[in-house]
Formats: sequence, structure tokens, C-alpha cells
Amino acid sequence: MSNHPSNQQAVLTVLSDFGDRDVYVGVIKGVIAQINPQLTVVDLTHQIPPQNVAAARFCLMNAYPYFPVGTVHVAVVDPGVGSQRRAIAVEFAQGFLVGPDNGIFSGVLAQSPAITAVELTNPDYWRTSQPSKTFHGRDIFAPAAAYLANGVSIQQLGQEIDPKTLVKLDIDICKQTATGVMGCIQYIDYFGNLVSNIPGSYVEGKNWCVQAAGLTIPGGATYSDVKVGAAIALVGSHGWVEIAINSGNAHLQLQINLQNILLLRKSTK
Amino acid sequence: MSNHPSNQQAVLTVLSDFGDRDVYVGVIKGVIAQINPQLTVVDLTHQIPPQNVAAARFCLMNAYPYFPVGTVHVAVVDPGVGSQRRAIAVEFAQGFLVGPDNGIFSGVLAQSPAITAVELTNPDYWRTSQPSKTFHGRDIFAPAAAYLANGVSIQQLGQEIDPKTLVKLDIDICKQTATGVMGCIQYIDYFGNLVSNIPGSYVEGKNWCVQAAGLTIPGGATYSDVKVGAAIALVGSHGWVEIAINSGNAHLQLQINLQNILLLRKSTK
Amino acid sequence: MSNHPSNQQAVLTVLSDFGDRDVYVGVIKGVIAQINPQLTVVDLTHQIPPQNVAAARFCLMNAYPYFPVGTVHVAVVDPGVGSQRRAIAVEFAQGFLVGPDNGIFSGVLAQSPAITAVELTNPDYWRTSQPSKTFHGRDIFAPAAAYLANGVSIQQLGQEIDPKTLVKLDIDICKQTATGVMGCIQYIDYFGNLVSNIPGSYVEGKNWCVQAAGLTIPGGATYSDVKVGAAIALVGSHGWVEIAINSGNAHLQLQINLQNILLLRKSTK
Repeated sequence: MSNHPSNQQAVLTVLSDFGDRDVYVGVIKGVIAQINPQLTVVDLTHQIPPQNVAAARFCLMNAYPYFPVGTVHVAVVDPGVGSQRRAIAVEFAQGFLVGPDNGIFSGVLAQSPAITAVELTNPDYWRTSQPSKTFHGRDIFAPAAAYLANGVSIQQLGQEIDPKTLVKLDIDICKQTATGVMGCIQYIDYFGNLVSNIPGSYVEGKNWCVQAAGLTIPGGATYSDVKVGAAIALVGSHGWVEIAINSGNAHLQLQINLQNILLLRKSTK
Repeated sequence: MSNHPSNQQAVLTVLSDFGDRDVYVGVIKGVIAQINPQLTVVDLTHQIPPQNVAAARFCLMNAYPYFPVGTVHVAVVDPGVGSQRRAIAVEFAQGFLVGPDNGIFSGVLAQSPAITAVELTNPDYWRTSQPSKTFHGRDIFAPAAAYLANGVSIQQLGQEIDPKTLVKLDIDICKQTATGVMGCIQYIDYFGNLVSNIPGSYVEGKNWCVQAAGLTIPGGATYSDVKVGAAIALVGSHGWVEIAINSGNAHLQLQINLQNILLLRKSTK
Repeated sequence: MSNHPSNQQAVLTVLSDFGDRDVYVGVIKGVIAQINPQLTVVDLTHQIPPQNVAAARFCLMNAYPYFPVGTVHVAVVDPGVGSQRRAIAVEFAQGFLVGPDNGIFSGVLAQSPAITAVELTNPDYWRTSQPSKTFHGRDIFAPAAAYLANGVSIQQLGQEIDPKTLVKLDIDICKQTATGVMGCIQYIDYFGNLVSNIPGSYVEGKNWCVQAAGLTIPGGATYSDVKVGAAIALVGSHGWVEIAINSGNAHLQLQINLQNILLLRKSTK
């Protein structure tokens, strides 16, 4: 329990596919406030495309390193709610993860393995002994997370389970080929930047370019290395090679989509 | 004043039709922070369709039960701002309501009646003695709410008024008929789930289905009781019978809209 | 340093063009929480049109007066990130401004001049000694702002610079002409209200109207001074003359756009 926050400074994050039109996210924060109104609650995003566990996995993986040790991350992208999928909490080196066992935490746990995992079977830490069949975020995940942030041990929340049994959702890993590193687009952000699955470490100290959709796009360091409207490949702020257009939208303008292939190679000049 | 929060743990919620493009919501929080920056402020939603008091009424009614006793709810959907409509604060068993007297609190108060109501006539608790004619959220409601959360009594905020004189906005109540319970769609959420005005208590322990738009939709317990893409009726997380599509959008796919009729009946099988 | 907040009550605001689909804003709050999880963080808006420094300038100028003295405003609309543009912090009478030196703070500083300005050159107050080339919001601005809110002096953050050298982005000022006051639309809000660059002080105590797009629009005090669907000119909550439609969208319905001209004149009746 060395990474357990004191009550005073505990931080919780919330990520979901609830959008911002309804009160679902507000209600989750109400449930947290009923347990401890002094907790600091941060929204990661609530605009995950509905039921898109893969996008949620990517977002969590890129966000958790920037939070204090001991932060509790609640993730509610949960197409299987009400079915047999398990509700879980996981302790790892940087804090805690709370949500459905559907692979949503795979990206985080591939980088920083689970220390302890439990199924949230103890109704003493649910909001009600009759949780809704459709909204475990409110009735099970939010209270479990608030109690964790309050200093309740993860073991109290339910039956311990083997972390090896957690559902995994892994994306393809990029591959070294004869001509370069072959990868694919794993995420498209709000600006239309195309984020690949090729780690930035592959391009350090090299002249490089990227080939995608029949185009050759020069590698650079920052958007403004090319003129406004021109395409550039660079290592994005999350550490992956990405394709962008200076002051534009690469997704729309280049017609490159999720899962599309790209090849990272040495520049010929 | 038994439900009055101590300063340390007071929670305020804010609901509006301001959207998220402008700084209006941020400014309301600034005004609250000028009075007490330690208050916990939770957004319910700011995506109420412009001037849609009925949608705001529904959202407040479904959110307030999940907040701590003593929470102050500020609601700013206010097409009559600057006219003769009253600015009010209401105390009820779970906390306080602050906003325009236009029916926005009708849903909450139908469930949990007003104890005390005041018109916000005391300029000592306004942000300025010359409030804007177009933004009472900033100049009257936000400061009144922050002072309430800070322990100022509701009577200090203005002249007491008879709760029976508050404007009411009531929706049709569903009706028992010879063939079943007849109701209508009262709200459509972000996922396209169609929320009716039939309370979930009508379906307990029965085999049931719903008829709407010429379709017969089976009753179930959870989205995954039907295959992906199929329609299901269930009791939603807010306690009303709703129509959903597993991993889909019932509103768009079934072409059912606000105010459309549905019939809840026994299943024939 | 008289306007320096104590740690207990420091408020930070964040404004950006990051939208709400990605975790960028959440990550900025994580970085702030790593420095001090007890700070109160308020979102101004993250829906500034991508790279639109002028819109960000307008929003900041209209929001800052409503926050406590000592508030730290972080603004990340930063098309030049990674180029030679300076990263700055500015102290002014009401608090602090942190962001790129691209004119984003011009509107605030035209109203309340800079007292001290520094370039954020001291890596001790960056998140990492190797900041990203594309996300100074996370690696330079957010930590600088959190340290300021924590009581670090602005001088410690880097080399002092002459406030006169800060990049300016000024809009046209309205002009008195023979027929009235000539101005233009400087901002369109979420409701479609058309905000001009004519201060409300020009219309005090007068019968007045506005001419724009071939229409004559009566001046009034509040939306409901005209019938639903009718156009009205009034002094908006931010203090500028604006054109609105009661329960409608003036931008779409009147086909008036950013930069369009309007004339404020005496009413003929």
C-alpha cells in the first residue's frame, strides 16, 4: 500500500463514452462527493466513441504517466455492462485502475504490470446493494474508486483474482522489414493528427520520412518545420510517430484512416 | 438549516444551456471562486438544448439524488432573463436549488417538496448592484449559490415567497389502459436511448414488451440480453422504462422521437 | 508580489483549442496535480477554433475580470509551438498569464497592463529538461502556472523581458462617424449572438438602433423586449453591443459574419 494517497491529496480521473449532453458524468461525481467531496476529480475525456474500448485503452495509456503516484483512474466504456464481464480494480506502480474487465486497461498494464487485482464483489463498497444493470459506473466503479482514494485497501473491495486472467486487448506491434519499419494508424486525435503504433525511439538522430497512402511525407521535429498546409511526420507529444498537416487536418486532407498502413524509412536525401 | 453544509465540504452543481464554446460557464465558476475558491463545483451538463426548460427539468430530477445532502444546484436555462420572471432559491430536504422561476425545478420538487423559497431580491448577495439584463447566472444565481454553500441562510437572500406560487412545468403522466400502460418519450440521451415517462416499477417481475412505431420490442434487463444491433426495452439507470439498441442508436435507427407514444404490455409468450 | 495567492486558495484557469475528444486537457491537469493536487482548476473553454489566437484573445479578455485576484490563467492556442516564438509568463494587477508570446494576452493587457514579464527559460520549472516540441502546454506552461500558484516568484521562472516587446494582436477600434458609430463583429458566441467591437457605454440613456446587412435592428435592454424570433440589439453580458434574436440564432438567421460592419445610430422614432 506504499502508493496509497493520503485523503488530503488524492486525485481521481474519469474517462468514459458518455459524451457531455447527459448528466451521467455529473452523477458519477456526485457519488464520489457523497463519499468524499474533497477529492480532486479530473476528466480525461468523455468523448470516447461509443463502446470503443480500443480508443479508451489508447487514451488511458497516454494519460496515466502525467498524474501523481496513487491516482485512481476510473474508466467506463462498458458495452458488456450487466452481462458476465467482471467489474475490477487493479493496483499498479503508479496508482489504481477501476472499471470493466474488457481490455480497457491493457495498454497501461503492458507498460506497468498489475500488482494486485480484485473483482468488485463486496457490496459494502457499492452505492447500493441492488446496482443498476446498465450503469455500473455510478453504482460500482465510482464508489470503489472513491473508497480507494479514501484509503480503503484494494483487498476489501472484493475477491482477489489472478492478474494473468484479466482480459487483454493488444494492438499490432510495428515490425522491422527490409525497407523500414511497418506500422499502422492506431488513433486519430481531435486535430486530425494520425497517430501510428511506431514508437518515437525509431527515428532518433536520423534523416527519415514516412510513406502512406501513396505519399512520401518528410520527417521533422515540429509542425512549423513545413509551410502552412504541408504534411509532416514527427514524434507527437505522446511519444508515437504521427502524421500531421501544419495548421490543417491530416485525417481529412490526406484521407488516411484508422488501421491504415505506414512505412517509416530512411530519407533518400 | 439542518441540511446546511459546513464550508469544508460544500458541493455546488451547475447546469445550463451555455454549451462549451464560450467562457460563460468558466465565468460562473470564477464568480463562485471569488466568494470561496475551496467549494467543490461539479458540472451536470451545459448541453441542454438552448432554452429547453423541459430537458433541464428532466436532467436535474435525475441527477440530484446522487449528491450529498446540502448540495446547492444552480440551473441556468433562462429564456426569460431580464423580463419579469423571478430569480429564486429553494430549500428542500436534500439541499438547495438556485435559478429562474420558470418550472426548471418542477421535477425535483414533485419528488421532494420545497421547504422554503425566496426571491433573490437582496442586492447584498448579488455580484454587483447593477446586474446584467442578460446574464443572471453570473450576477445573481452564482453568487447566491456560493453564499448558500458558505453558510448564509436562505432567508438573507431575499423576500420569502409561497412555494405554491412557483411556476410548474409538469409532463404527462403515463396511464393504465385496457391493453397496458400508455406513455410517451420524455427524453433522448446522448446514446440515442429513448427514455419514456413510465416508471420502472410497472415491469417488476413480469414478462413484458413495448409497442412503439409499429414495432414490438421485447423487455429485458440489460443491453446484452439481445444481439448487437437489436432493439430492447429495459429499465434505464434513471429508473424509467427506455428503448435502446445494443451497441446502436435507437433514436436514429427506429425513428422514434420526443413525445412519441409507447405502450407497455404483457408479453404474449 | 502583493497579489500572490496563498496555496490554500489559488485558482488556475485553462483555455485551449484542444477540444474535448482527447486527453490533452486532462494531462495538463495531471501535471498541475503532480505539483499541487489541491489547486482549484477551472476550464475557460477548450473549443477555441484550432489555432485561432484572436478568438482566444477575446475569450480571455472577457473572462479574467470575474476571477479572484492572484488567479493564474494558462492559455494554449499555440500554432507556433516548437518554433522561435517565446514561452512567457506575465504578472498584471489581477494575477498571472502563462502561455505563448503570440498576442493571445493582448486583450487582457490592453485593459490592465503588464507589471512584469519573463521568458520561461528556467528548466528547473519545466516538467522535464527535454520538453516536447509539440506540447509546451504540458511540459512548460502547466508546470510554470502551478509553481506560480504555489508561490514561486515569476522571476524564478526565467529571464525578465521588456513587456513592450510582447507580441500584440489588436483589433480595430470602432469609430465615431457623421451618422453614428461604425464598428464590426468581433466574436460570435455559441448561441449565434453577434458581438461587436462597440462598447456598451455608447448607448447609455439613448434611443438607438443598429444597421447591419441592410437591416435596421432596434436597440433594447433584454432579449424578451422583442417577440420570439425577432432581432434585437442590446449590450451583452460582456459589455459590448451585440445583435441577437429572441430564442433564435442571429448568426445563422441574419447571415451576418465575423468582421461584418455595423452602424450604431440614434433611433428615428
